[in-house]
Amino acid sequence: MDTTELSALIEPKEPKKLSIISFSGDFDKLVATFTLATGAAATGYEVNIFFTFWGLDAIKEKKGRAFVGKGFLGKIFGFLMGGLHSAPVSRLNFCGISPGIFRYLMRKKNVATLEELVEAAKALEVNMYACEMAMHILGLQKSDFIHEVKDVLGVATFLDISEGGRTLFI
Amino acid sequence: MDTTELSALIEPKEPKKLSIISFSGDFDKLVATFTLATGAAATGYEVNIFFTFWGLDAIKEKKGRAFVGKGFLGKIFGFLMGGLHSAPVSRLNFCGISPGIFRYLMRKKNVATLEELVEAAKALEVNMYACEMAMHILGLQKSDFIHEVKDVLGVATFLDISEGGRTLFI
Amino acid sequence: MDTTELSALIEPKEPKKLSIISFSGDFDKLVATFTLATGAAATGYEVNIFFTFWGLDAIKEKKGRAFVGKGFLGKIFGFLMGGLHSAPVSRLNFCGISPGIFRYLMRKKNVATLEELVEAAKALEVNMYACEMAMHILGLQKSDFIHEVKDVLGVATFLDISEGGRTLFI
Repeated sequence: MDTTELSALIEPKEPKKLSIISFSGDFDKLVATFTLATGAAATGYEVNIFFTFWGLDAIKEKKGRAFVGKGFLGKIFGFLMGGLHSAPVSRLNFCGISPGIFRYLMRKKNVATLEELVEAAKALEVNMYACEMAMHILGLQKSDFIHEVKDVLGVATFLDISEGGRTLFI
Repeated sequence: MDTTELSALIEPKEPKKLSIISFSGDFDKLVATFTLATGAAATGYEVNIFFTFWGLDAIKEKKGRAFVGKGFLGKIFGFLMGGLHSAPVSRLNFCGISPGIFRYLMRKKNVATLEELVEAAKALEVNMYACEMAMHILGLQKSDFIHEVKDVLGVATFLDISEGGRTLFI
Repeated sequence: MDTTELSALIEPKEPKKLSIISFSGDFDKLVATFTLATGAAATGYEVNIFFTFWGLDAIKEKKGRAFVGKGFLGKIFGFLMGGLHSAPVSRLNFCGISPGIFRYLMRKKNVATLEELVEAAKALEVNMYACEMAMHILGLQKSDFIHEVKDVLGVATFLDISEGGRTLFI
């Protein structure tokens, strides 16, 4: 076996693996997260998403504002954070009108909407995980999330799971 | 060929390749994007930037606010988003004064300004791509962008192009 | 040496190395940064953090608001940016009440607070670097930072240091 053969063997090393730490619950960043996730999964990537902090909004069972979470402050935060349907846009949010405009534009242009992207991610078996620590701080439990959420993990375990591919923080 | 030789052969595996998904159109994040891009390109990296959503502001032909984009809502968003010259700062924006202060500080301290960084990126042959889906939503066309934009791509193609190096989401 | 042996040799290639470009000085993103950093370091990763722009707040010697920085505008920005104790939350900041609520929730739930996470990062010998260019723009000097900051670097040097592992932009 000479060097050329070896190189050929070594070259296509990077596994088709995409991991995303979904921290932001902004509407547009969630669209980006799920577009990347479904685009990658559809072309054969193993995709892992680790939802943490505001990102947890994306996987809540209740899609609108609701007093989920334990404790008084937890419930208040839960309500203010809302769910997938109340995610704000990261810029030019205009007190909440903007996500509606985006939804309208996405529907009109036949681009998959955020809800459709989430459904596609489920269908494509994107692995979804919830961050243990953030759930603890915000008083959330596994039962508050959609049942597709595979597991509740700490950072170290997610670093293990996502090893060997690319990891993005969104 | 023994294990040591092999290791030596395998060790410096990671290709000098930096890919950036430029999502945010914030002034300071664009400075970070282009500083990383030019710094990497100048030291021999292949650099790919995939502009999407607000990041598309950075590569618009019209640098100021203009009604680019198709459709009524597209034009409104195009105007509100603006271009490279109207990018807001992600924090302490003070209704738009802050980018001016930054520009002033950067000029005064002889740090390359954002416009100069973009010019440097062109000169260093940083590969710039525009996100098809975001363009579609916002009603933008390839002709709205600077001619250095190499191609209009989907997520899957960009994942291919950026394979084997580091990818950042900014 | 046959292909199988070779593969075994090549497989666990990715070094346990995590590098973070800490750009945002938001309270919640700093919590994420230091949770990732300490979680990784505790499980044997080499961890490098490159603090730039607002992220520099996290490593300032003065934890509260202070007129650090050189020049009039530098001092104003220094005061407005503040330090670790005045970091705002990226969403639902409520004019600065929110970090206090988070601190309270974190303390109550026995989750390490941001200050404790920073101390843990020091104890775990996380490598901390400051961005030369951002310091220059904001008029900051190495003496404005905690002494654990290992070095002042440019982008190219940090890309070298962080080579071969995963890099996140937060």
